[in-house]
Amino acid sequence: MIERTLSTDEITALDAYWRAANYLTVGQIYLQDNPLLREPLRPAHIKPRLLGHWGTSPGLNLIYAHLNRIIRERDADVIYLAGPGHGGPALLANVYLEGTYSEVYPNITQNLMGLRAFFRQFSTPGGVPSHVSPPTPGSIHEGGELGYVLTHAFGAAFDNPNLLAVAVVGDGEAETGPLEGSWKGVRFLNPVHDGAVLPILHLNEYKIGGPTVLGRASDESIGRLLAGHGYDPHFVAGTDPMRVHATLARTLDACVDVIDLIQNNARTAGHATECRRWPAIVLRTPKGWTGPKEVDGKPIEGTFRAHQVPLAEVRTNPKHLAMLESWMRSYRPEWLFDQEGRLRADLAALAPKGDRRMGANPHANGGRLSVPLDLPNPRTYSIPVASPGTERHESTQRLGQLLRDTYRKNPSNFRLFCPDETNSNRLGAVFEVESRCLVERTIPTDERVSPEGRVMEVLSEHNCEGWLEGYLLTGRHGLFATYEAFALIVASMATQHAKWLDSCEELPWRVPVPSLNILLTSTCWRNDHNGFSHQGPGFMDTIISKKGTVARVYLPPDANCLLSVADHCLRSKNHVNLIIIDKQPQLQWLDLDEAREHCERGASVWQWASSVGQPDIVLACAGDIATMETLAAVAWLRARAPEMRVRVVNVVDLMSLFSPDEHPHGMTEERFVDIFTPDIDVVFAFHGYPGAVHQLLHRRTHASRFHVRGYREEGTTTTPFDMVVLNDTSRFHLVMEALRRTRHPPPGADRLIDECRAILKHHANYVREHFEDMPEIRDWVWKAA
Amino acid sequence: MIERTLSTDEITALDAYWRAANYLTVGQIYLQDNPLLREPLRPAHIKPRLLGHWGTSPGLNLIYAHLNRIIRERDADVIYLAGPGHGGPALLANVYLEGTYSEVYPNITQNLMGLRAFFRQFSTPGGVPSHVSPPTPGSIHEGGELGYVLTHAFGAAFDNPNLLAVAVVGDGEAETGPLEGSWKGVRFLNPVHDGAVLPILHLNEYKIGGPTVLGRASDESIGRLLAGHGYDPHFVAGTDPMRVHATLARTLDACVDVIDLIQNNARTAGHATECRRWPAIVLRTPKGWTGPKEVDGKPIEGTFRAHQVPLAEVRTNPKHLAMLESWMRSYRPEWLFDQEGRLRADLAALAPKGDRRMGANPHANGGRLSVPLDLPNPRTYSIPVASPGTERHESTQRLGQLLRDTYRKNPSNFRLFCPDETNSNRLGAVFEVESRCLVERTIPTDERVSPEGRVMEVLSEHNCEGWLEGYLLTGRHGLFATYEAFALIVASMATQHAKWLDSCEELPWRVPVPSLNILLTSTCWRNDHNGFSHQGPGFMDTIISKKGTVARVYLPPDANCLLSVADHCLRSKNHVNLIIIDKQPQLQWLDLDEAREHCERGASVWQWASSVGQPDIVLACAGDIATMETLAAVAWLRARAPEMRVRVVNVVDLMSLFSPDEHPHGMTEERFVDIFTPDIDVVFAFHGYPGAVHQLLHRRTHASRFHVRGYREEGTTTTPFDMVVLNDTSRFHLVMEALRRTRHPPPGADRLIDECRAILKHHANYVREHFEDMPEIRDWVWKAA
Repeated sequence: MIERTLSTDEITALDAYWRAANYLTVGQIYLQDNPLLREPLRPAHIKPRLLGHWGTSPGLNLIYAHLNRIIRERDADVIYLAGPGHGGPALLANVYLEGTYSEVYPNITQNLMGLRAFFRQFSTPGGVPSHVSPPTPGSIHEGGELGYVLTHAFGAAFDNPNLLAVAVVGDGEAETGPLEGSWKGVRFLNPVHDGAVLPILHLNEYKIGGPTVLGRASDESIGRLLAGHGYDPHFVAGTDPMRVHATLARTLDACVDVIDLIQNNARTAGHATECRRWPAIVLRTPKGWTGPKEVDGKPIEGTFRAHQVPLAEVRTNPKHLAMLESWMRSYRPEWLFDQEGRLRADLAALAPKGDRRMGANPHANGGRLSVPLDLPNPRTYSIPVASPGTERHESTQRLGQLLRDTYRKNPSNFRLFCPDETNSNRLGAVFEVESRCLVERTIPTDERVSPEGRVMEVLSEHNCEGWLEGYLLTGRHGLFATYEAFALIVASMATQHAKWLDSCEELPWRVPVPSLNILLTSTCWRNDHNGFSHQGPGFMDTIISKKGTVARVYLPPDANCLLSVADHCLRSKNHVNLIIIDKQPQLQWLDLDEAREHCERGASVWQWASSVGQPDIVLACAGDIATMETLAAVAWLRARAPEMRVRVVNVVDLMSLFSPDEHPHGMTEERFVDIFTPDIDVVFAFHGYPGAVHQLLHRRTHASRFHVRGYREEGTTTTPFDMVVLNDTSRFHLVMEALRRTRHPPPGADRLIDECRAILKHHANYVREHFEDMPEIRDWVWKAA
Repeated sequence: MIERTLSTDEITALDAYWRAANYLTVGQIYLQDNPLLREPLRPAHIKPRLLGHWGTSPGLNLIYAHLNRIIRERDADVIYLAGPGHGGPALLANVYLEGTYSEVYPNITQNLMGLRAFFRQFSTPGGVPSHVSPPTPGSIHEGGELGYVLTHAFGAAFDNPNLLAVAVVGDGEAETGPLEGSWKGVRFLNPVHDGAVLPILHLNEYKIGGPTVLGRASDESIGRLLAGHGYDPHFVAGTDPMRVHATLARTLDACVDVIDLIQNNARTAGHATECRRWPAIVLRTPKGWTGPKEVDGKPIEGTFRAHQVPLAEVRTNPKHLAMLESWMRSYRPEWLFDQEGRLRADLAALAPKGDRRMGANPHANGGRLSVPLDLPNPRTYSIPVASPGTERHESTQRLGQLLRDTYRKNPSNFRLFCPDETNSNRLGAVFEVESRCLVERTIPTDERVSPEGRVMEVLSEHNCEGWLEGYLLTGRHGLFATYEAFALIVASMATQHAKWLDSCEELPWRVPVPSLNILLTSTCWRNDHNGFSHQGPGFMDTIISKKGTVARVYLPPDANCLLSVADHCLRSKNHVNLIIIDKQPQLQWLDLDEAREHCERGASVWQWASSVGQPDIVLACAGDIATMETLAAVAWLRARAPEMRVRVVNVVDLMSLFSPDEHPHGMTEERFVDIFTPDIDVVFAFHGYPGAVHQLLHRRTHASRFHVRGYREEGTTTTPFDMVVLNDTSRFHLVMEALRRTRHPPPGADRLIDECRAILKHHANYVREHFEDMPEIRDWVWKAA
């Protein structure tokens, strides 16, 4: 127990440090010159465009200063996640004060000139963003889209037993669904092998324009809410800095003591002991605290008007300028900084040292700590394919075995995240070695549920995605497996993560982190039983539009391709890898060596299914069901129109269709022509919306010869085969299109088209009359010649 | 107060009604024949493919039966929203029992033959979906993607003072972020002018494979959580049906009494009175209650194994078949149904009558009650544009005025939903007549906040979207305004709503409802100050891929076009209308009449900006910033290369680019060629990702002549002009592309290209050296010749 009362000197020093951070925050928002006000403030010192968020910043600075003390006194390993990350200047101020910033960016020195440059670069073209973002040392959480700070904190804490992730939740953010859904992370936190998360709900009552729900709620109400979520809430509130310093210090000590106690008890016992609730802090301070009280007759401090730039006309309105000057001088910069413009030595000593500084903590630059996965050999799980298209297997079941052994070989460096579908997605082999995680009582009817478990099942795509992001950004490895349609729930989160990775590309000090791997199963084509709401391949489109440096989309057609792709993705860094394959038993096409070669190429001609020589028509496909339909179409054509010269192309790496200047995986035009011919028509069966392929191909030679079929928002509860029929993507639709587009129509092409039409009509009647799946059509597939 | 204890007879009757619903639920999952077991069950009576979710259904049936009593006894106006809507057979069973189903679908009669057809159609090709969905009478909430049932219920209750929306929250759904974030709806519910929402948290402890967080939590913990959210929780739990009936009946009466009390007090006082907390029910019953206890040695009832089809092998395993038969007979069908196969008359009398039946309640078929908006004349707010491109205005500010007067003329039939950005998005004029809604104490520093308010600001895109969906599906009107980048947060919700509307197209009994209108402001191009995380036009792509019957995307380039588009969208039905325009001051191009004509066409040649006759190059644009850059490029070309014949095309209705068989707004090929010429190159400046346009155009003549520039994931905190430069979409990039692509390059084209390059280089240096916005370039715009 370190809990104690700070002396007046200690509080005074803490307050001075806080004032310095507040001063630097205001300076970044307003000043382009005269950084320490060594001369009277003039309009010329003011930036031409005033940007930045003042309102939340004093609170963020307060917490930072107090955490510095905790770290220093306890040698604690702490990272700081700023939910209200639009208070970017606050975090920048602190990493500057502690010296990290100048180490990472040597041009921003610890003196007057450095300070001037530090102010000038903020939220300026060619400078640094206004929100916490990748360029901010110590950050793993972007201050843009709100709602994910707790998920990131929990992800960081999993399997990081010595880490304390402090997550500041702003009261605006606290209103979002994803944030409210993420308090429950504590029910998945194991005090033996995980670190701790200390949420600080920082309430300053207002958003941009109106009050917040929790800001306006009573302590009693918030107390119940947090208790209901499994926390022991501690309240700190006030408007008098000295009192708040004292209470916050005492409270932080108490909370960290409890965390230590929970962890020590559990670690001594060797298992999660009877639950003592984890602490959380509710901190109520005025919005824009220590800023102007009133401007032009309107209250500012403590209101929504303090949200961004409280004094807007400082360049033109002398009264505003004077108010800014007196505001900034109220922090006493002449006392805080020495002659060179460096923070006083006694204050600088309040920051932790080296990697203990929150801006320098290696967990927040996870690549520094990342240990590569020890991956099993995919061959162990591969399927021998003597003859293509003759056997059906659940492809994802093989991946499950690979993941099982990945768990086995990397017991605390890898996790699978899934919204309660691990078995449903046929990845259940992982339960041979790992349990579902739930740090609650378990009962005899549970199967593979344990507080020690590391399979993360929670019916919240937001938690799955956010936990994994936090886990990856701190250097570990994982996979998020989910139903295809509901991946769209996290389209925005994945977009933000892709943007984060993309920004990191330009920051050599950010060591690459393991890729975000997302497996989409239970796809639109095989949600025949779940119906229209479960049929949506749109997540892919979100990834395709992201930068080529980051985004990858794979459509393995069978188990061996899936194993090959997964092996590649689990080794890769700084990518968002999307892998799409269904979980149902499906035909197998390639043996592992062929699969590897095929996946490496990204797309290739399947010679064994193609006619010799130049084709009359190309049948291309991407996606498992698209592949099956295509090969069934080719089999049908081979039987009925043997004269037709057909080429089959399979695309496993969708990005290979891009031109090389759009995506690093893009095929050269030469290879493209080699595969797709220069001018022969291509009937393209696609897994997703056809538009996705159209946009990939637009720069290619004679792009208009590509006739793409795919999901076009037709569906209901029906049979798998009816799904491809409804979307005009069945083997018979492909056959008809091929017969219409082929360069040399075979004899009787019209008759063959009529025959397809008749079959499809029969199909429609058939399923309605017999309420039956159509095994004889479903199983009528490619047999190797 | 109607609270009382039910008699044994009443409970017995309730139980019989419940048994009937349970029987029909099991029948739908299993039987294709012998619906009332009038002969011994044989494998031939079993469906070939067993689909459906049993686990949640008994609970859904229980609640339905009990609500029937409440409605009957109180003549209450109640709709039922089934969060666990995958328990579709339960809801179907109930709307069948109450007679609604046979009225809507006359082929499903109230007799043995009808019952047989009712069973056979369930989850069968050509039949009805397995989840609650548009074909289910009485539903406004799809049983697919989880998380939105409370938002839909609150949306339905707003401005529906006599409605009670009962929302069943499954414990799986309760884990999602959006659901957890939606409890707070109660803080926005005004007891004077809104109806009531009664949440029933139905806990049966398990999801598909594992326990749920709340299912495993203590009553104390859940009680705190709900109290923290502002509810007064009532607990009902048990495994003995008779006891549960008695407790649930008493509890429901108590809850409805409290609701009446809250409303009566408030309505007598004329304002929301001191808050008495709204009731909520926590109902704990076993998963798959009354189903098989154990199968093949494994426990079923009360475990995750009851989730879907508890007896899987009934067709092949005689033991399973016998278990099914004894399970079904345990409900005593021979007693429940008369000789014809109709529900006993004394039981049928337990259902409410006519429109009070929950399956027939007109609020759940909102078009029936919908009153068209009384819209003000857009001319009132239009901007006189004497000469195009000479004045700057905030276009959305004009829309704000139109919305203000829409509120004025439709005081309880229209609401604006926005994540705390109404002022920021320049729609603040609404505050002249309406306040922000918050049913909490207000304080003097608040501005336009009131419990009576109808501007719905909550920092949760999920709540905004979900509330609006609920409001629309019950027949009212509204608009959701949000930052463009963060619209992607609700990409999946909007997708589900589009699917809902699309399915309604095939159901003539579903009367069309007002469209979902989404305004995206603060777009990627003008989030220069907020940085990369705020720059994402991807939501548009989500809408483009939806069905043409439903999806609309508008890119008005100025205020008058915005007014014209908004007027159209607010009158439309059954669409998802996406309107994208920035909020910053922007150049105005068309007067209102021109704007109307232009918007009606969807796309047109801007003759006043074009050279006479056949062009050498077409400069096309869609989106406000794209339009400005295009016209600035044309102005530059006109000055530097007057010989070049340039045509300007503006696209306001993006769907007009589709071919007519892909979208009803698609232009005929003739009009397309008329506008874009048959073969001249087109430099297309686009608001979003270029791929979106490529996919729209792929079927058009010589699609490869379209050179699209748009957002390509480049950005940071910078100037507006730097944003277009970073994305190669600035006027100078357009000029260079035009000079390279024009059919007849003007003299000195190479020199002009060099000049552009030099300007861009200068620009890059300039912004870095001077940290300045570039007004001289930003303001250098089209002046009408």
